[in-house]
Amino acid sequence: MGPKYAPNLRSRLAPLVLFLQTGFIVIYALYVEFEPNAFTYGNTSSKLYAEFQDVNVMVVAGFGFLTTFLVRYGFSGSALHLLVTVIAIQWSIILNGFESWLQSRRIRIDLKSLVLAEICTASALISMSTVIGKTNPVQLILIAILEVSGFILNGWLLQTVLEVRPLNCAMQLHTFGAFFGLMLTWAMYRKGSETPFEKEKVDRKTGLFSMFGTLFLWMFWPSFNSILVEHGERKLRIILSTYLALAVSAVAAAAVSVFTSPRGKINLDHIQKCSIAGGVAIGVSMSVVNLPWVAMTIGLAAGVISTLALRYLKHHMLLAFECHDTCGVLSVHGLPGLLGWLAHLILQINYMDDLTTAIRFAVFHICTLLITLSLSMSMGLITGDMFKWNFWKPPQDRECFDDQVFWEFPDLAEKKRKGKERRTPYALKPFMSL
Amino acid sequence: MGPKYAPNLRSRLAPLVLFLQTGFIVIYALYVEFEPNAFTYGNTSSKLYAEFQDVNVMVVAGFGFLTTFLVRYGFSGSALHLLVTVIAIQWSIILNGFESWLQSRRIRIDLKSLVLAEICTASALISMSTVIGKTNPVQLILIAILEVSGFILNGWLLQTVLEVRPLNCAMQLHTFGAFFGLMLTWAMYRKGSETPFEKEKVDRKTGLFSMFGTLFLWMFWPSFNSILVEHGERKLRIILSTYLALAVSAVAAAAVSVFTSPRGKINLDHIQKCSIAGGVAIGVSMSVVNLPWVAMTIGLAAGVISTLALRYLKHHMLLAFECHDTCGVLSVHGLPGLLGWLAHLILQINYMDDLTTAIRFAVFHICTLLITLSLSMSMGLITGDMFKWNFWKPPQDRECFDDQVFWEFPDLAEKKRKGKERRTPYALKPFMSL
Amino acid sequence: MGPKYAPNLRSRLAPLVLFLQTGFIVIYALYVEFEPNAFTYGNTSSKLYAEFQDVNVMVVAGFGFLTTFLVRYGFSGSALHLLVTVIAIQWSIILNGFESWLQSRRIRIDLKSLVLAEICTASALISMSTVIGKTNPVQLILIAILEVSGFILNGWLLQTVLEVRPLNCAMQLHTFGAFFGLMLTWAMYRKGSETPFEKEKVDRKTGLFSMFGTLFLWMFWPSFNSILVEHGERKLRIILSTYLALAVSAVAAAAVSVFTSPRGKINLDHIQKCSIAGGVAIGVSMSVVNLPWVAMTIGLAAGVISTLALRYLKHHMLLAFECHDTCGVLSVHGLPGLLGWLAHLILQINYMDDLTTAIRFAVFHICTLLITLSLSMSMGLITGDMFKWNFWKPPQDRECFDDQVFWEFPDLAEKKRKGKERRTPYALKPFMSL
Repeated sequence: MGPKYAPNLRSRLAPLVLFLQTGFIVIYALYVEFEPNAFTYGNTSSKLYAEFQDVNVMVVAGFGFLTTFLVRYGFSGSALHLLVTVIAIQWSIILNGFESWLQSRRIRIDLKSLVLAEICTASALISMSTVIGKTNPVQLILIAILEVSGFILNGWLLQTVLEVRPLNCAMQLHTFGAFFGLMLTWAMYRKGSETPFEKEKVDRKTGLFSMFGTLFLWMFWPSFNSILVEHGERKLRIILSTYLALAVSAVAAAAVSVFTSPRGKINLDHIQKCSIAGGVAIGVSMSVVNLPWVAMTIGLAAGVISTLALRYLKHHMLLAFECHDTCGVLSVHGLPGLLGWLAHLILQINYMDDLTTAIRFAVFHICTLLITLSLSMSMGLITGDMFKWNFWKPPQDRECFDDQVFWEFPDLAEKKRKGKERRTPYALKPFMSL
Repeated sequence: MGPKYAPNLRSRLAPLVLFLQTGFIVIYALYVEFEPNAFTYGNTSSKLYAEFQDVNVMVVAGFGFLTTFLVRYGFSGSALHLLVTVIAIQWSIILNGFESWLQSRRIRIDLKSLVLAEICTASALISMSTVIGKTNPVQLILIAILEVSGFILNGWLLQTVLEVRPLNCAMQLHTFGAFFGLMLTWAMYRKGSETPFEKEKVDRKTGLFSMFGTLFLWMFWPSFNSILVEHGERKLRIILSTYLALAVSAVAAAAVSVFTSPRGKINLDHIQKCSIAGGVAIGVSMSVVNLPWVAMTIGLAAGVISTLALRYLKHHMLLAFECHDTCGVLSVHGLPGLLGWLAHLILQINYMDDLTTAIRFAVFHICTLLITLSLSMSMGLITGDMFKWNFWKPPQDRECFDDQVFWEFPDLAEKKRKGKERRTPYALKPFMSL
Repeated sequence: MGPKYAPNLRSRLAPLVLFLQTGFIVIYALYVEFEPNAFTYGNTSSKLYAEFQDVNVMVVAGFGFLTTFLVRYGFSGSALHLLVTVIAIQWSIILNGFESWLQSRRIRIDLKSLVLAEICTASALISMSTVIGKTNPVQLILIAILEVSGFILNGWLLQTVLEVRPLNCAMQLHTFGAFFGLMLTWAMYRKGSETPFEKEKVDRKTGLFSMFGTLFLWMFWPSFNSILVEHGERKLRIILSTYLALAVSAVAAAAVSVFTSPRGKINLDHIQKCSIAGGVAIGVSMSVVNLPWVAMTIGLAAGVISTLALRYLKHHMLLAFECHDTCGVLSVHGLPGLLGWLAHLILQINYMDDLTTAIRFAVFHICTLLITLSLSMSMGLITGDMFKWNFWKPPQDRECFDDQVFWEFPDLAEKKRKGKERRTPYALKPFMSL
């Protein structure tokens, strides 16, 4: 790695991050305060805390470790991810409070604000999964900020124009995130990506780290889907539906993976990613799922479609559409999100006796999807166009998927300097640092 | 690994899994529904959720990562484990609802159904630990289904014949699982196993992954033991007892491990497995433990016995009884389960003033154990006999404990095909897949 | 590793640990009982359980895995840590109950006792982080026992002499632990430590294991700070303050790390350790933080100071003061703890109208710090002096930071004996053991 080619981020990342953080603190100082009278026992906030921690684990550790499967990208996968997450959360809190600010010039935050911010951030993390390894931290942070803004705008549009319920808006995160990400990676396509990048691979140990992320997503997904729902029968239904859908999609992922493998072997990548497809699909459709077998069927369909897409469509997307999707977001969030939308449509119409109401609902439901898709895709396209310039100093092709471009590895550096160091032990400064 | 020897699971695993899953969905469609009026605040279900997630983490991530200590078996340990778990859970929910089905033709599920299903599944995972690495996924799934059926049958027998309380039946999972597993691995014994298998070893990193599983089991064990108990003084007692017993058995494991090592070193395997022996023993005896020191003494005894058994007995079992117990289930669950049973007997008799009642209780308690042991051992034996045939295409000896038999490793394959690929980049399909 | 040099711990560790454990059981048998009438629903104990588990995860898994970054020290980092933790917890419960014992000769334990014990243990784990890798298990256990005793004595002094509130006493754990540890490692300084130890380094995978520890600490820190606070508005404020401070200090750590790196790269060590500095600082000052931006500013300052100290001060401490601080405890807990103390002082004075009260508070607050610092440093010094003797058989310099000194690695041993084993398979005893 010749030092003259490695982009030096010192003059960009540090100022950007400090500028954003200072800006956030100023905005918080001017307008944000703690919600008083919250968190008394029996109150919503107090009941929310354990579930908030589940969602927190998913967003911070689950999504983060999911991307450590790349053999030389673990530091970025887990730690850079934390940086992007905390910036996106602070930004989401501000944007989500914008309406309240318009009314009273104050934004009052409680646990629910944090939960909503985590959901918005999850949407940004989904989008980013398409371009990780091919972008630098500066790009990732700005992409996350734009995606979060777009997602919150989308929610506001849906609520204002179509009067979609807040819960259903929040659950568009999968669809919005996936299609934003797909257009983003399409716009940022690098020539030559049809052959795999040199370091775009996994090994036994990184596969396990990634499995750790998967399992935490898988286990806590019922909390993710149910956290915005008030306690009561409906919350239990959503928890159980999500659990069953996840269980079935894990089974479906394994079955389809073996079935489509010529040598009858399972692909760990399929298990890791498609096991959670059921949670995505049920998340989008959960408000109309009233029976266990319906949840299971949705989970089965999601698992099958997701695994097939990851096995066949992902490669096709790359070659035919020049869309290099690092984590297979189309298969994991995009298609299951659409499937959930379809299931919602079918189930809702099924409950209706009246054709007119059914048609009216269908039109409404299609509009919801159209707004989400068009906003996400256009914003993804614009974002991608903005960030493909060399101005941003993205890593070169042979530096892609490599932590060494952005992370200090003094142990490696030391080896080269060894002879010198033997004589001048006083000089070797960061001996314990990574 | 010659491809002609590697068993191709495509024609077995995929159909089996899809058949089971479709069957489950059909049964759920016909008979299973969500419990209405559950999960209102203050209600059992709602209070259960945080503890349910602890148990879920134990069963899905804890047990799974515990078996990643084998150096080339991490993918199977964590991901195959997930597959078996979700199938066993769906099956357990059906079987646990059988009685309700007999009465009303409906099975109503709530969070408690899921908790019970996880406990039954844990029993199956304990049994499977004796044969992992030497079986294929088809065998593992069928074994889990049979074990779960046996365990639920055992609970039904104990409740019907002896009127044992449901909590005490559930806590037989350790004894039942361990002795089922022991007979299973005895029946499936392979000639030549007295020398270790080629890949049956650990390294520094897999030791740490396994430690991760241990710690999650260790930390959440108080939830596991107390989850079926109603809130109140007794629940607190069980939580604290379990915590203290676990703490003491971790100490005992370290002490015995050092003491029995000629060079005075600790064995990580002992810490990983015997630290949780206290949780097993206290789980079986907890309903009669009223004082902290009693819990600690049980934990101490469990830790000492478990570590001694893992150090000496395990090898003896292999050589003298041809019982190759991969995870040392006899030491970790079997003997501590028996110890807990004995502690229960002694403590209960100790509380009784009257000799007649004491003798009556002793007979009742011995019968409980006898039923559990005879059912588990006979079912384990039958299961083992069924699954040792070559019809199931088990991995050959030199393929044992190796992920490569069941998992795609395209990175390895690519290396061989490298020259060809350079020329035809279009052909390399699953480049990103594992 | 010549066997004649490797210290054999058999005759020391096993007796010490068994003696302590037996002693604990005897004390518990004589004086400790479960709190009756606790854990009824709505009661403090019952609400505490989910948060207790968060704190438990931090203390057992978080702190443990944080120290697995050393490339050959993972077994000790995670498993030895568990041993020290459980001994320190049992000891803390006894000491914390001492006052109650004086009154009634009974110590009644409930969940809050366990929580307090975990906080005391965390303090000991912070101290130990300065000397891990350079000490043996016997030393670590005795150090933990002394540190916990000192910390509880400090809390008792503060409460008795200055009438500091219990919550504020508990939050001195960072300052007390850090300065105890610094004096400890200063007193135990080994000649030649200015050049790094041979095995004192990280690799890609151990960096990820350590990140796992960091994330669990980071995510659950709000529970750690708020667990002793009753439900209500104040608890919510502390949860949100802690979350925001942690978020900002993660951003600050990344920014400062990049900015101070000549090649503009981030140092994973800084992210792992300084991301939690905000939680430390806010923990010490949280009772007077009423606005989000104040929490964020404290987090920013903590992150910046902590990262600068880890980058520059740590090495200076080693060379100029002969203070070899393995985990950079001064940067992570010491300075942020002092910063939190200062923030508390400034904010509290800011709220006061009256100069006299302000001066009185300042004197009181300075006394609090002085007592904590003088007690921690003097006890650290005495402890360090006691444990630097060769009597304790510490590992030799070239054995430092190496699991092989204390852990069995039969796989390595087997290779050497291979020829013999081939002929006598019956002799290879612990084939499956690590």
